[in-house]
Amino acid sequence: MRRARRKAGTLLEAAPGIKGARLLLQMEPPRVSRDLQRPLPWPDDPELLPLAPFVHAAWGDGSLSASELGELSRAMGSFDWLDEEARDALELWLDPETPPAPSDLVELRSRIRAPDFDDEARATSSLADLGLALRRTGGKGGPWSEQGARDALRALESALGVQGAETAHALRGTEMPTPPSSSAAPAGFDSQSLRSFLERDNPAARERAREALSEPALQIPLGLPEDQYREHVLAAVRLLAERGLGALAYPERHGGEGSPAAAVAVFETLAFGDLSVVVKFGVQFGLFGGSVLQLGTERHHEAYLRRIATLELPGCYAMSETGHGSNVRDLETTATYDPDADELIVHTPHDAAAKDYIGNAAAHGRMATVFARLVVGGIDHGVHALLVPIRDGGGDPLPGVAIEDCGLKEGLNGVDNGRLRFDRVRVPRRSLLDRFGSIDADGSYQSPIPTPGRRFFRMLRTLVLGRISIAAASVSAAKVGLTIAIRYAAGRPQFGPEGAPEEPILDYPLIQRALLPRLATTLALHFGVRRLQADVMDAEKFDGPELEVAAAGLKAYASEHCVRTLQACREACGGRGYLAESRFAALKADTDVFTTFEGANLILYQLVAKGLLSRFRDEMGDLTLRRAVRYLAERAETAITELNPLTTRRTDEEHLLDPAFHQAALRYREERLLRSAAVRIRARLERGMDSFRAVTECQDHLVTLARAHVERLLLERLDEGAARAPSPGLSHVLGSAGALFALSRIERDRGWFLESGYVEGAKARAIRAQVGALCADLRDHATLLVDGFGVPDSVLPQMAKALDGE
Amino acid sequence: MRRARRKAGTLLEAAPGIKGARLLLQMEPPRVSRDLQRPLPWPDDPELLPLAPFVHAAWGDGSLSASELGELSRAMGSFDWLDEEARDALELWLDPETPPAPSDLVELRSRIRAPDFDDEARATSSLADLGLALRRTGGKGGPWSEQGARDALRALESALGVQGAETAHALRGTEMPTPPSSSAAPAGFDSQSLRSFLERDNPAARERAREALSEPALQIPLGLPEDQYREHVLAAVRLLAERGLGALAYPERHGGEGSPAAAVAVFETLAFGDLSVVVKFGVQFGLFGGSVLQLGTERHHEAYLRRIATLELPGCYAMSETGHGSNVRDLETTATYDPDADELIVHTPHDAAAKDYIGNAAAHGRMATVFARLVVGGIDHGVHALLVPIRDGGGDPLPGVAIEDCGLKEGLNGVDNGRLRFDRVRVPRRSLLDRFGSIDADGSYQSPIPTPGRRFFRMLRTLVLGRISIAAASVSAAKVGLTIAIRYAAGRPQFGPEGAPEEPILDYPLIQRALLPRLATTLALHFGVRRLQADVMDAEKFDGPELEVAAAGLKAYASEHCVRTLQACREACGGRGYLAESRFAALKADTDVFTTFEGANLILYQLVAKGLLSRFRDEMGDLTLRRAVRYLAERAETAITELNPLTTRRTDEEHLLDPAFHQAALRYREERLLRSAAVRIRARLERGMDSFRAVTECQDHLVTLARAHVERLLLERLDEGAARAPSPGLSHVLGSAGALFALSRIERDRGWFLESGYVEGAKARAIRAQVGALCADLRDHATLLVDGFGVPDSVLPQMAKALDGE
Repeated sequence: MRRARRKAGTLLEAAPGIKGARLLLQMEPPRVSRDLQRPLPWPDDPELLPLAPFVHAAWGDGSLSASELGELSRAMGSFDWLDEEARDALELWLDPETPPAPSDLVELRSRIRAPDFDDEARATSSLADLGLALRRTGGKGGPWSEQGARDALRALESALGVQGAETAHALRGTEMPTPPSSSAAPAGFDSQSLRSFLERDNPAARERAREALSEPALQIPLGLPEDQYREHVLAAVRLLAERGLGALAYPERHGGEGSPAAAVAVFETLAFGDLSVVVKFGVQFGLFGGSVLQLGTERHHEAYLRRIATLELPGCYAMSETGHGSNVRDLETTATYDPDADELIVHTPHDAAAKDYIGNAAAHGRMATVFARLVVGGIDHGVHALLVPIRDGGGDPLPGVAIEDCGLKEGLNGVDNGRLRFDRVRVPRRSLLDRFGSIDADGSYQSPIPTPGRRFFRMLRTLVLGRISIAAASVSAAKVGLTIAIRYAAGRPQFGPEGAPEEPILDYPLIQRALLPRLATTLALHFGVRRLQADVMDAEKFDGPELEVAAAGLKAYASEHCVRTLQACREACGGRGYLAESRFAALKADTDVFTTFEGANLILYQLVAKGLLSRFRDEMGDLTLRRAVRYLAERAETAITELNPLTTRRTDEEHLLDPAFHQAALRYREERLLRSAAVRIRARLERGMDSFRAVTECQDHLVTLARAHVERLLLERLDEGAARAPSPGLSHVLGSAGALFALSRIERDRGWFLESGYVEGAKARAIRAQVGALCADLRDHATLLVDGFGVPDSVLPQMAKALDGE
Repeated sequence: MRRARRKAGTLLEAAPGIKGARLLLQMEPPRVSRDLQRPLPWPDDPELLPLAPFVHAAWGDGSLSASELGELSRAMGSFDWLDEEARDALELWLDPETPPAPSDLVELRSRIRAPDFDDEARATSSLADLGLALRRTGGKGGPWSEQGARDALRALESALGVQGAETAHALRGTEMPTPPSSSAAPAGFDSQSLRSFLERDNPAARERAREALSEPALQIPLGLPEDQYREHVLAAVRLLAERGLGALAYPERHGGEGSPAAAVAVFETLAFGDLSVVVKFGVQFGLFGGSVLQLGTERHHEAYLRRIATLELPGCYAMSETGHGSNVRDLETTATYDPDADELIVHTPHDAAAKDYIGNAAAHGRMATVFARLVVGGIDHGVHALLVPIRDGGGDPLPGVAIEDCGLKEGLNGVDNGRLRFDRVRVPRRSLLDRFGSIDADGSYQSPIPTPGRRFFRMLRTLVLGRISIAAASVSAAKVGLTIAIRYAAGRPQFGPEGAPEEPILDYPLIQRALLPRLATTLALHFGVRRLQADVMDAEKFDGPELEVAAAGLKAYASEHCVRTLQACREACGGRGYLAESRFAALKADTDVFTTFEGANLILYQLVAKGLLSRFRDEMGDLTLRRAVRYLAERAETAITELNPLTTRRTDEEHLLDPAFHQAALRYREERLLRSAAVRIRARLERGMDSFRAVTECQDHLVTLARAHVERLLLERLDEGAARAPSPGLSHVLGSAGALFALSRIERDRGWFLESGYVEGAKARAIRAQVGALCADLRDHATLLVDGFGVPDSVLPQMAKALDGE
């Protein structure tokens, strides 16, 4: 027998259908004696010709997977006009144990290419068309001209993931009809219009910040010793204060411009430059000044805002404690009201309650907004803020205040972080920032907000704003890194084909994959942060935990994105990126702590996940199982309806690039992770586990859920941005970035999507190919895109300055 | 009709078998009116009792996947004694559109738990046993006592991934029989025995290095300005030279100890400390001195080795050029023989040919081993090395030598990297390091090695040794980072259940997952690097490109592992990790360039992949398709035999922890990636693409292949280490680390393993669970493991010093 085969249960005879694959997999390991020298001719039977392109495609990568085999055998089982001999011949071609030789495939391809096709066939747009055209060249149509047979071939195309004209043309060796070139910049897309669009809010404030960045005081030399670095940064912040950039958010009557939005725009523009400057700027005007503005009342504003805005009164925001970096609710510093002296006594009960990592504390701060548990008449009213002077006019610590320098850090060494301890320091009652909680003249505690939870949330507003600022600074730093790396990679050749001019490394698929999905993510974060900023400015919306959750999620995602992106950018620039002059050393070291401060990312992600779950709990209201099941059932319904086989298997470009598909996929993932997280935690609670342990055991699930949530939101923001873009060209490029963002997420998590059945193998492969294709497309626009970020030349290293000046 | 259902094609009636799932997926989206308040009782039919545990397990996570449904319906279809009523009842329980309420599941569970089981049932070890015991409590055995029915239940266990006693006990609410506790340190496992085992070669040399690390000269203060830092580092290297640690590899007659292995041991021990010191040490004694030793002949040894070993003659290894960082073969500096003067003229033809990033060049080097194209009589003999003096006794550059300082870098600022340009600098003919290529007195070129390729390889020996050193230093740095982070995480509490003592963060699954697989990888790299060092010492083996490939792969993998690990460690330590005193700032900044220098990682990975492919090409010999197919067919055979359904679906712990499974999985991945890479490149070549472009287009595939290759090798090394460990306890813990290394790789790449059909969904989930379980196991040994690394207290920050001193 040719190629000793024919075991019990051969393929097409026994089970034409999906079971074929299954049977085959359950066979004994093959013990066949091979004779591979003998060629495997394609049979002359004209009824087999339409299948030839599929057989060729299925073997295209040198192996035939069980699912490919299953699909092929299933389809062929339905063509009942194939006779026994034809089936035998096909079976030989589809036996994974004895794959056709490359020479067999070459022969088969030449068969497919041989006919002198008619015009219709030359314009062939799929393997099915090609197969049917082959049959036509053999004369009659026969059973293949039936609609059912054509449909079966098209279904097979989809199942094998070989849809689209490209596969057919590659097989035919013909040229694709030229589509409108995607590599030419689309109409209306240029860096200036992108920049105008990205900076459409508060352009004037941004321009003021950009001008300040080019001032000599803002050019901080590299490699300064810590003390000199701190003084340079102080001088830079002073210049910014002189330009009025610190006071933008404060009311006009206190020397400001009453525009928090302008303040935010300035902050994120300044974050293109030295990050010590922007952090010290943020501590002074945003955190310290912001706490006075938000938590204080008119008398505090009157007394301090103008002095803060001019940097006459440098101050601190003393929240974090050594033992409670990310757990603000449990701070241990106390502020106890002494009715006899009408004073508050600020006290650090033990070392773990020291205020730690406080910016502006080690050298320059004169006063601090201290967060402490307010104790009035023996009752702990929870965390409140009060103003405590920490240094005298000569710069020495005041009595009872112990200040320690945190010392050298990985980065941000221009910021003087310190540790503060208070030993029964007395301040007047009016030092309490009393907008949300006050002490009467008669010594009783009052608050306009009845519940401690909501009061606490209102007090945290500055912290929420701080988190949004970290997110914004992370996005700015990522923009700088990508600007440097992409300009460098577009210009620097490394190797090339022998004799040919060396190629820019941005032409390398690996470099594209390292940089361009991150470019797309940076754009998504841009729109995500801008939208959150706008929501926060809208006081109406700022009245619940939703924004706290959103800020936590964006801060965590943006900061980890920034760190990973800068590392990828540094590596793309090789040794050049390692030189301090490239800025990567400082960018990386300065931003690394963004993942930790204003709340460690893993804690923030859990906060996000718990926020999502608590909505679920809210929906359940009385927490009865009865209601839970209704909720779960709704979720289950979603899950089933989305698992439409057309969706899980479609691999055509139209579908893969469809924003509706992207959004559905990210929504599906979030929903399903949410539901399963709820189920997992509930199961533990039902076993009697305490809720802390139940949540801890599901930590990784919760963090995955939180990231999925943020990514779904970011995709929506980027798609909105693309929709609102002022020109079709800009809209098109932003849409491509959206597709790359979404598909690169699905590709990265394809394990999850495959496991959950949301995509099948062929589709996962098609998505990978599409990510590569989108990278290649965006490569052509990459330098224009980073030009559109508007990073000024004054903050860029020589290797990345704009070619035509700023 | 209850729960308005019963559409055309209901589940069990229509297609008892895998098609059930398929049909269901193809149904219309459900439009059912729900009445979820009504409970879903489990029927009284005793024949259904054995299935109850499976139905409960299938709904365990709140949803029923298509594959779970398919398996259940298929199994149930085979139990032909179930009557119509029983099937209807089951169908209701298995309808994904109307999932049972949690209360229904609680009811069902209480049914399962109700019976007072006999002893046999109490010792139940699986869901199948439990089901059959339930049936026995109902009286007779009936059809369920048949072997076939039992086998079907066991197959169902496996298909659903609910094998093993744990699931059954959890469902029963009974305790697992206590296995030997895995959390107690196994017999013979303690940090001292691990350390003795890890440091069993050259312990005396290591101890000398460890002693040197505690010397005051090696305690480099933090935050020094660059120039002072360089002087401190020079002084440290001088002390090491005085201790004779620089000369270990040199022959005794030249002041050394003739032990390259001891030199390597010292180098990697020193890499626990300041990395500028170790890099400068490596440049002077390893690269500069090593090039004289390896490429020079006796007269060079006589003239220089002793002066190099004492640091009397500080020198450089001038290989990299600005335009050719990673592409040594194409260096452009020339050394042209002038027969009239009997001199060599060293020349930098243009700026891109400047020797760049050369350690010891900017400040201290007096001489350099310069790699240049040797031109004799107009003939370019390829890259050779020669000794060129660059500074006079006063430290000034010699005529014709231009030296530039590379300036501040991200890290390693204690090393004076510089740029060298030569303007027709003349040196005597004897300056040529002429072991592998020389110029006769009569001016003719001679070489004992006939082919330029092999000659080039022998000249690169120092470079290969340099790469191995970078790998070793990366492993040492990762050990330091993990020691700091794990000791800190094991000690520092953060949050905890209310009222309970705060828990060490190492108890958090997320922290375990961030640190412990990296700990396992570090152990694997430890054994991988040691083995490669030993192979290189073995001159016999050092005679082909295999070691070059191995060194390239390990260098790339170890350096990227180091960078990612230090980042994870820094983040695990939060704000404490950001303080410079934690050492992470320097560790991260110093090691970051390891991914770039001595060959950029992406280039090295491609070199590895090409090495693997060229073996394939070598096997094909004459490159005919005929022979290629034999090779491919062999690969295909491997692929098919490994895709055994037992392997793709087994989820029991015995299998998941079986080293044979791990090795088979990593081998399978490597083989398959290799084969598909070959096929992809071949396809491009056949289309007429030039080989450079063909390889470039497949870059990401090649890098994936190279990483897969390195991981397969590393697993083998770690498993060998476990097998050779001197005690069963040590062997057990190292074996667990091997399992964690392997399974965490499979988990990370589960997209690939799922796509290729090597694992199925249930198995992927079981692997994830097993990774979590292994992390929890290793958590108990984590501090002992890092103690076993033997990082001395003298290089550790206060937060991580050993509790009982060194």
